[in-house]
Order: sequence, then C-alpha cells, then structure tokens
Amino acid sequence: MSGLDEFGEIARLFRPLARGAEGAFELLDDAAVVPQRPGYDLVITKDAIVEGVHFLEREDPTLIGRRLARVNLSDLAAKGAEPFAAFLAVAWSKRFDEAGRAAFAAGLGMELKTAGVSLMGGDTVATPGPFTASLTAMGWVPAGRMVRRAGAQPGDRLMVSGHIGDGWLGLAAAQGQLGDPDGYLEGRYRLPTARLDLARTVLEHATAAADVSDGLIADAGNIARASQVGLILNLEQVPLSLSAKAWLLAQSDPAAARLALASGGDDYEIVATSSVALPGFTVIGDVVAGHGVDVRWGDASMDAGVGGWRHGLA
Amino acid sequence: MSGLDEFGEIARLFRPLARGAEGAFELLDDAAVVPQRPGYDLVITKDAIVEGVHFLEREDPTLIGRRLARVNLSDLAAKGAEPFAAFLAVAWSKRFDEAGRAAFAAGLGMELKTAGVSLMGGDTVATPGPFTASLTAMGWVPAGRMVRRAGAQPGDRLMVSGHIGDGWLGLAAAQGQLGDPDGYLEGRYRLPTARLDLARTVLEHATAAADVSDGLIADAGNIARASQVGLILNLEQVPLSLSAKAWLLAQSDPAAARLALASGGDDYEIVATSSVALPGFTVIGDVVAGHGVDVRWGDASMDAGVGGWRHGLA
Repeated sequence: MSGLDEFGEIARLFRPLARGAEGAFELLDDAAVVPQRPGYDLVITKDAIVEGVHFLEREDPTLIGRRLARVNLSDLAAKGAEPFAAFLAVAWSKRFDEAGRAAFAAGLGMELKTAGVSLMGGDTVATPGPFTASLTAMGWVPAGRMVRRAGAQPGDRLMVSGHIGDGWLGLAAAQGQLGDPDGYLEGRYRLPTARLDLARTVLEHATAAADVSDGLIADAGNIARASQVGLILNLEQVPLSLSAKAWLLAQSDPAAARLALASGGDDYEIVATSSVALPGFTVIGDVVAGHGVDVRWGDASMDAGVGGWRHGLA
Repeated sequence: MSGLDEFGEIARLFRPLARGAEGAFELLDDAAVVPQRPGYDLVITKDAIVEGVHFLEREDPTLIGRRLARVNLSDLAAKGAEPFAAFLAVAWSKRFDEAGRAAFAAGLGMELKTAGVSLMGGDTVATPGPFTASLTAMGWVPAGRMVRRAGAQPGDRLMVSGHIGDGWLGLAAAQGQLGDPDGYLEGRYRLPTARLDLARTVLEHATAAADVSDGLIADAGNIARASQVGLILNLEQVPLSLSAKAWLLAQSDPAAARLALASGGDDYEIVATSSVALPGFTVIGDVVAGHGVDVRWGDASMDAGVGGWRHGLA
C-alpha cells in the first residue's frame, strides 16, 4: 500500500480493515499475496464510484464507504462467489479532512467485516476533483463454477430478486423531486443491499446471473447478449416495493411508469436465469431462442428505448 | 466489465487487451476468473493516478496509458513477480473524446502486451473532474517467495538499480524550470521504465525490495521500518545519469543537491537489500541493527527532512 503519509494514514485508517489476513502483511508492503485455495477459482470484479455521478454530492462519508463495498460485493453475489478480499484505490477530494477519511474507512470496514472480507492493499492519493474510489473485490467459487452472464438456455425462466425501481425512485426522492414520507426510497438509493444472502442459491441453481446496476432491462440485455439467447420480460411481473406501488398508482401511464422502473439503475438486486424457480426470486419471463430483450406489456412488445433492446426474436 | 456504453466502448477499446485470456470471458462478464497455478502465489498491487497530480495536465493520452501500466508493473518487478493480469478502473474527464480514449487504451495495451499481461476486467465511468485511473496488477511468484519490504538483515548491503533523481529533474524540466537540451530528463519523468528485467534477480537474491516511487530515501525508509532494521545510505554512492551529473555540477551545495535527487520520486527503479552485490544494481549502503535511514554525506549524517527519516541508530 502506498501513499503520501503511508505509515500514518494507512496505519490509522486502513490497517484494522486487513483484519490480520495472511498475505496482507498488515498493509506494510506495496503488494499482497493471495494464497492458493485448491479446488476453487478466484472471482475478481472492480467497480469505481465518483462523487456527484454515482452518489449524491456531499454524501455522508460513512455511507460512501459502505456503498463502495456493497456495489462491489453485489457483483460477487451475482457470480455465486464467497467474498474474501478487497483492494482499495481512493482519491480524496478537498472536503475529506481527517474526520471524513476516518468515516469513509469506518463505513467501508463495517461492510467488509460483515461480509468476511479483508482489505489487502491499495493506494491513497489526493485529487483536486471529486472524490473517486474503486474497489477490486475477490471471492471464491468451486473451480469452474462461476455463474456467468453467458449460460442462459432457451426454456429457462427469467427471474429477479427483491424489488426493482426503488433505486431510481430513491434518487428522485433524494433530489427532492418525489415525495418519500418515510424515507424508504431515499434509503434504498443511498445504501443499497448487496444480495450476498442469495449467492449460494445463484451458485447452485442459476444458469446465468448479473447484478442489477445499470437497470433491469439493460442488465438482462447483457445476459441475453453473452448467452446468445432472447429474453421475454413481462413488465407486469417485475416485483415492486410498497413504496414503488404507491408511486405507480399515481402515474397516468402505468406501462411507461413500469418501463421506467425497469430501466432505472442502482437496484443491486440479482437478475438470473434457471430451469427452476428459485427461493428469493420472482419469475418475470422466459429465455427463448433469438436475441435481445423483448419487453412485454400484456401481450404487446414495448419499445424499451435507451433502457434496453427490443430486437425482434430471430 | 461494466460501464455506460458497455458493448460499444469496451468491445472497441479494451477487448483486444484481454488477449483471449481464459477467465476474462472477452470482457463480456461483470467478473473474471483467475485460475489456480499450483506451486505459485498470486501477487497483487494497485496504484492510482490523477491528472495534474501524478502526471502533467493535458499529457498525451497514449503516454498516460503507458504510464499507468508501468507504475503498476514496477511494483510487481520489485516483488520478484512475473506479470500476468490487470484490472482497470478509469474515470474519463471531459477532454477524453473517442480519440483520446482510444489512445489511452492503445498505450495501456502496448505496455501490457510487452509484459505478457491480459486485461481481465474493470470499470469505465465519467467524471466532471480530472482524469483518474487505477490498475490492479497481478503476477506470479513461487509459493512463499514474494520479496517483501520486510526481510532485510543486518549485514546485507543496500542497493538501487539504474539512476536516481531523473524523475524529479524531469518534472522540473517538463515544467520549464530546468534546461534539458536533449529532452532526456523530461522523457524519464513522462515515461518511466518498469524494471521487469530485474524481477528474476530480485526474486532469487534480494532479502527485501520496493520500487522507488516516493523517493529513494522514503522507499528505503519503508524497507527499514517493515524489516525493523536501520539503513545507512551513502549519498555519494547513489547512481546518477549523465544528465543528473551535469545538473549537479552547476549546483552550489552538492550535498543538498544530492539529497534532493534522493528525495524526489518517480524514479521507478528498485531499491533492494541482499547479502551479495546484484547485477544491475549499485551498492549505496548497508543494513545495520537499529531503525530508520541514516543518510550520510562522507562521514556525516544529514538531516533528510521530509524526504526520509534520520533517526539515530539504536
């Protein structure tokens, strides 16, 4: 781990997050060693976040740390992986004084500890621009068993975990564009849940999976493209929270409103395909021969616009 | 790999950099699989760069890509590791149009290809601030053999590869504060060399090593601290390029000038300790019982100031 005030800031803020992991060398080295685990593959993902782009400007630093952990752990969950280690790169903007940096580290550490993850290294730098950070998150799967975007087979069912659309509504609520009396939606945007509770189910039963970060239709589209199949997605079957249902009731065009919920991002649920219905998931459609996502409203195909693809099935 | 225009930008710019690596899934997935290599450890490092902080504002995007690769490969070389894979996070600033992004990818790809490294995943985002990027670089060492900062033993010699101080002089030259008739110094700053040619020597013979990124004295200090030893560093033995020697001749205080060269960063050489002199390295001092770096000018200890530590040896 390197950085300007290496043995000050890193010791104070980040060494506790290494949690004594062998190979992290208490963050005293400029590299770490990941041990071999016979019979397992190492699954690696890396996502970045920028203040004002991926989270609200002047967000609570603790929540930023927690969010960075969760958006990366979400990718591991969708791959069926057991979280193990992380590497951090953080560019502190000017507003991050010592208290802000400590709060960020505490938030990150809280989530990593809950997930059983050790911080094994990284880099801290300063930036004249907005706070920017990336996490490289690693987990284990039994050898050859990572659940890919590729793998969906015609005849499988298409399904999604939890509720969809709260992230998109929550951003609108946080920006004051939407009523949110109990703060539920805003909370769902500001601190999404990584569905690590579903990782084993995904590993054992999903033929393909991805987390829902760019929007359900777009992420389903990634599965369709990688799997070289078509997907039928029935908008009316997409599971909604009570808050999203309340919002929907006030909309004049329910089809357009449901399309927006399924196009907005930041849900961090898991979209998957499987030959059987999976506990914790709601079936929303089917895998068919063809390509692209056929978004249906009743019996009609909709133009999913920028949120997805509406190719005719081959 | 995720990002807004996933199947456009990533396919165009970055898929060639995966070089068909098994487990990269042609960057079609949101995670990658690193295979096991029995008998080897996976060494991982992660460094970040910010425009205007770690390289010149408005630097040629090709050189930025090359630099990002090299500063990370430099860490692997200093650990004795054989480079293998990389994960990228890049936040494009507004000046990075399609041509700029392509140039960055080409520069990164050039260096990764030369080093035998496959790009296996990552994330591309947009930022309203300066261009920011991090690379997570991975390499192999025989199990248990990573050369750490810890490991220096009293009685070992202290040594450094190549020339020291060109990076610091090169930054001054690039900023127009220093004559640099042939552009050698500026070139050394803008595109440092990662000493992958020395990785095997380090692996086989070094008791401790680190790359020289924060300045020779500071990086030697990291070795002293992690190894719980003292280091004697003889400034007059620090190897200088012809250009640095020419600059030195024009300085009124040669001790202060040599101290500055050994305190400036961005050399990307390797500082190491070993019981034997190593080919490609210049012996610059000794490992002793104690702590800190004792920077010597002749027989006198100097105050190394912010560039290092001058603790009396215990």
